[in-house]
Amino acid sequence: MSFQDWMQAVRQRTELALDRYLPPASHNPQRLHAAMRYACLNGGKRLRPVLVHAAGAVAGANAEALDRCAAAIEMVHVYSLVHDDLPCMDDDTLRRGQPTCHVQFDEATALLVGDALQTQAFATLVEAPLASTTIVELVRTLARASGAAGMAGGQAIDLAAVGQALNEAQLEQMHVMKTGALIRAAIRIGALAGESLDAAQLDRLDCFGKILGLLFQVVDDILDCTGTTAELGKTAGKDAAADKPTYVSLMGLAGAKDFADDLLAQAQRLIADIGQSGQRLNDIALEIVQRTH
Amino acid sequence: MSFQDWMQAVRQRTELALDRYLPPASHNPQRLHAAMRYACLNGGKRLRPVLVHAAGAVAGANAEALDRCAAAIEMVHVYSLVHDDLPCMDDDTLRRGQPTCHVQFDEATALLVGDALQTQAFATLVEAPLASTTIVELVRTLARASGAAGMAGGQAIDLAAVGQALNEAQLEQMHVMKTGALIRAAIRIGALAGESLDAAQLDRLDCFGKILGLLFQVVDDILDCTGTTAELGKTAGKDAAADKPTYVSLMGLAGAKDFADDLLAQAQRLIADIGQSGQRLNDIALEIVQRTH
Repeated sequence: MSFQDWMQAVRQRTELALDRYLPPASHNPQRLHAAMRYACLNGGKRLRPVLVHAAGAVAGANAEALDRCAAAIEMVHVYSLVHDDLPCMDDDTLRRGQPTCHVQFDEATALLVGDALQTQAFATLVEAPLASTTIVELVRTLARASGAAGMAGGQAIDLAAVGQALNEAQLEQMHVMKTGALIRAAIRIGALAGESLDAAQLDRLDCFGKILGLLFQVVDDILDCTGTTAELGKTAGKDAAADKPTYVSLMGLAGAKDFADDLLAQAQRLIADIGQSGQRLNDIALEIVQRTH
Repeated sequence: MSFQDWMQAVRQRTELALDRYLPPASHNPQRLHAAMRYACLNGGKRLRPVLVHAAGAVAGANAEALDRCAAAIEMVHVYSLVHDDLPCMDDDTLRRGQPTCHVQFDEATALLVGDALQTQAFATLVEAPLASTTIVELVRTLARASGAAGMAGGQAIDLAAVGQALNEAQLEQMHVMKTGALIRAAIRIGALAGESLDAAQLDRLDCFGKILGLLFQVVDDILDCTGTTAELGKTAGKDAAADKPTYVSLMGLAGAKDFADDLLAQAQRLIADIGQSGQRLNDIALEIVQRTH
């Protein structure tokens, strides 16, 4: 199967998994459930589910376990988008070409959507058909990546950074937490779900995940600078307009592109000796960078 | 030890447990961590931790496990208060006699405080010194009680109910989810942490928890009607002013008080044969009702 066909297949099964693990729209409270589904079931890029499945392939994980892991991570990602779009945060009205959740529904509902999606992520993960010891490690990994030491903490640093001059190390710390932690967790969770890798193999994939998270952010900053709103499906130039520090504002456009190429090379070295089962991870790293070209 | 002394001891150890399991204020992002601590470490009533310890006593649970369970449930409760107080929800400025989190800090920080507290609850629970099978059941119980089928779903129904005429069954369903689910989960989680009760014993405590949650809400409605802002430490008469249905608006004050007495009797019957180890649960039920007299 070609990489593009494989990605498409993962996206389709993730859509089905989200549909299965979200509360049904017909159940009370209908409006909340409809809004949770609106936020999740919109044909997004599904980068994190794709990473879960790619890492799961390295570890020989079973399909239902990966579906639950992928849906759980995507729910956390979507909850963060819904809350990030709220008027008191980025106040964004467009997401993946559609009205954001609080525009389509209302602010109070969007707040509860994010809250309930986070809970649903843990509820979904805990029912994975895996050993209890594995589930405990999955919950631990997702919680560490999502909370004050990860995604939510990174958003807090991002809030404080508007209009501030950050150096490269500070910018990297923010992105490692805000975006990188969940991307890294996606790879670790997919790998754990296989219940077959040793600690050294897990660590190597974890390093790959950390670099990939940073790479994703550098590319995102480049696209925010060079893309159009129609291409991105969200408001372009938003970060620059908000005077937020980015890799482009720090390094210039050419410097940011060079940095992305360096990170790609580092990532590829880390998985060079995995062999065929690591091919999808390599493909994903290439795909992320190719978005800038 | 008298019941009041025991409650005070549980409150003190919960304060210490929260201090231990929350991220340190000295760590980056400091403002988020300070706000999480501001929201949690305020000497609240700690009803849910008290319930965890009371149910844990029935099951002979160990102290560290109960501290983690109690802190986790309290974090979920506090996150719900922080989000519920936001301008797009109840828009409340006073909580336990202090400025609410978004007033003391800002809206974006309060949003992230709630998000990060929910995650921290799962992160805290998953490290309890218990068998993995028990931890999985604890995470499952907390997630079910907190999400769209529990607390967050109840808040969504509450939102939709403003200005609506609800009958008693609809009002009960809202409260069973919004407030009751977490109170019930506190008892179940404390009982599970003991790793000693059989399914029938767990079920009986679960029924007790369900009734206690409803009792708590009926009493809360009575106090919202009869108490003053100074006594409650929050704005009195808020529900009536917002035209929210309450047990008092549905049954009248005397009817609500009779209903509370009935629920107390039901709860007491359920734990009558537990013996001495159930004394604290009985004391708590009495204490809840006595607030109205």
